[in-house]
Amino acid sequence: MEKQPVRLWIAGSVGIDDITTPRETRANQLGGSVSYACAAASFFTRTGAVGIVGEDFPPEFTALYEKFGVDLAGMEQVPGQTFRWAGEYHADMISRTTLKTDLGVLAQFNPALPAHFRAAPYIFLGNMQPQTQLALLDQVEGKPFVALDTMNLWINIARGELLRVVARADVLLLNDEEARLLSGLHHLRDCAEAILEMGPKNLVIKKGEHGALLFTPGAIAIVPAYPVRRVVDPTGAGDMYAGAFMGFLARENQPATPRLMRDALLHAAVAASFGVEDFSLNALETLTPQTLAARHAELVAMLDGTR
Amino acid sequence: MEKQPVRLWIAGSVGIDDITTPRETRANQLGGSVSYACAAASFFTRTGAVGIVGEDFPPEFTALYEKFGVDLAGMEQVPGQTFRWAGEYHADMISRTTLKTDLGVLAQFNPALPAHFRAAPYIFLGNMQPQTQLALLDQVEGKPFVALDTMNLWINIARGELLRVVARADVLLLNDEEARLLSGLHHLRDCAEAILEMGPKNLVIKKGEHGALLFTPGAIAIVPAYPVRRVVDPTGAGDMYAGAFMGFLARENQPATPRLMRDALLHAAVAASFGVEDFSLNALETLTPQTLAARHAELVAMLDGTR
Repeated sequence: MEKQPVRLWIAGSVGIDDITTPRETRANQLGGSVSYACAAASFFTRTGAVGIVGEDFPPEFTALYEKFGVDLAGMEQVPGQTFRWAGEYHADMISRTTLKTDLGVLAQFNPALPAHFRAAPYIFLGNMQPQTQLALLDQVEGKPFVALDTMNLWINIARGELLRVVARADVLLLNDEEARLLSGLHHLRDCAEAILEMGPKNLVIKKGEHGALLFTPGAIAIVPAYPVRRVVDPTGAGDMYAGAFMGFLARENQPATPRLMRDALLHAAVAASFGVEDFSLNALETLTPQTLAARHAELVAMLDGTR
Repeated sequence: MEKQPVRLWIAGSVGIDDITTPRETRANQLGGSVSYACAAASFFTRTGAVGIVGEDFPPEFTALYEKFGVDLAGMEQVPGQTFRWAGEYHADMISRTTLKTDLGVLAQFNPALPAHFRAAPYIFLGNMQPQTQLALLDQVEGKPFVALDTMNLWINIARGELLRVVARADVLLLNDEEARLLSGLHHLRDCAEAILEMGPKNLVIKKGEHGALLFTPGAIAIVPAYPVRRVVDPTGAGDMYAGAFMGFLARENQPATPRLMRDALLHAAVAASFGVEDFSLNALETLTPQTLAARHAELVAMLDGTR
């Protein structure tokens, strides 16, 4: 079968999570940055996944990816155990304790991009070893628009490699804590100036329920989050946010102006707001484009004060 | 001299503060909710102060009030010591430790509204004993638009009286912590629903640097803060916010629609963002209406993603 090129591919972790919240525990949930980001992106554009799983990866999880229409040509299955993570959320449903991290086959993640992924115009490099992110970038053709995520671990132990990827990113997405760690500064505008000096064209600093700030050369956009009523499981919120952001940009296929990126982040906030209303991808699985659009309109009205 | 009626009066504490930040300590600063709120409101409308000070209140503080054009007919000076507060900010410049609270003459605050204040169409009842807030409301003529502030202390020890004032407020302003304490709930939308049931027509939940949420019957407006570069002294930020909010509404003199209140909160965010850039009222003292308007335009552009 001739493979249809993807518009966006997303690389990172694919995992099986045990999630504990103050209300309940759910074991063996589909997780990982690729799962969350691809599901959210799939509402907007033709998305491919780049990841690695073990032989224990349940066929129903593969089926779920397919239900979202995700191209799995970049998903490698090898002997061994899938990446497993267990975490427990505290009463505020924001802070959490990691109970278990078993890398499993993720430790040998050395992805080869499928041919029909190589010319994709949009790429999201989810949180993973910066060396792997660099290796992926070296396989692309053309000049794709690259979004990059990372985490405290890599800022601390692989700063050199991380800075090499950062310099090649069109958008770096960090949470406020990571921005402070990377820059060594406190006020987010100071952090942003210092980080933009490191080479990324744009920077999104995520503040969870408080929204995000988009820093572009010479401009700032304030992008609120949707005020969610009920957070059931915040796992993957940042990945859904990044996935929908890139999915929207890929669909629009226009130069990434501050205005367009701000609009993309509003759509991202809406997608993530649904995602956290249930465990794993459950809420996204039943989400319709109509429901997504209705909440987006609601959020825009909340910003204008017209609703 | 015939007294010109005020458009807005503001009641609460007038104090002398000792402020310690990680960088420096400033003793004997003009403080109190009335000082901060009146100064911010004075950029928009003719404002009167209702407060009490002791014989130690420096004439230069009175002169500063007059420099802002504040009508001091409601400011009583009596034998005894002015309210004194001392606090120390932690490294995040948000959390703080109260080092000293000497009520002084504030303990005998039993204000009588000046005749030319009684028909003012806008009132801000700053944080004080709920009984005093009620006593003030009982002196007004007509149907003014009433904004109300309070604090954890009164929610805890004077809930009954507080609820009587809350029910008479057109806008109740609380921070997120106070909203959770008053409602006993966690998610801010749940808090807001429960609090609106208590009778205030509208509710503003303030989230500091993350902005605020405005809850009106059936509608929510998200109102971001201006991303400040440099916080020198956050004391009084909430009072400047409320003062400018009410000053703007008093100047516009239109029905308080969600849209108008949202616009007022944007102006409030800008006024407060200047206020925290220096100790006491120093930043507001040198602020021009032009500088204020320029930052407001900047904030609006940041919301639209057009800057």
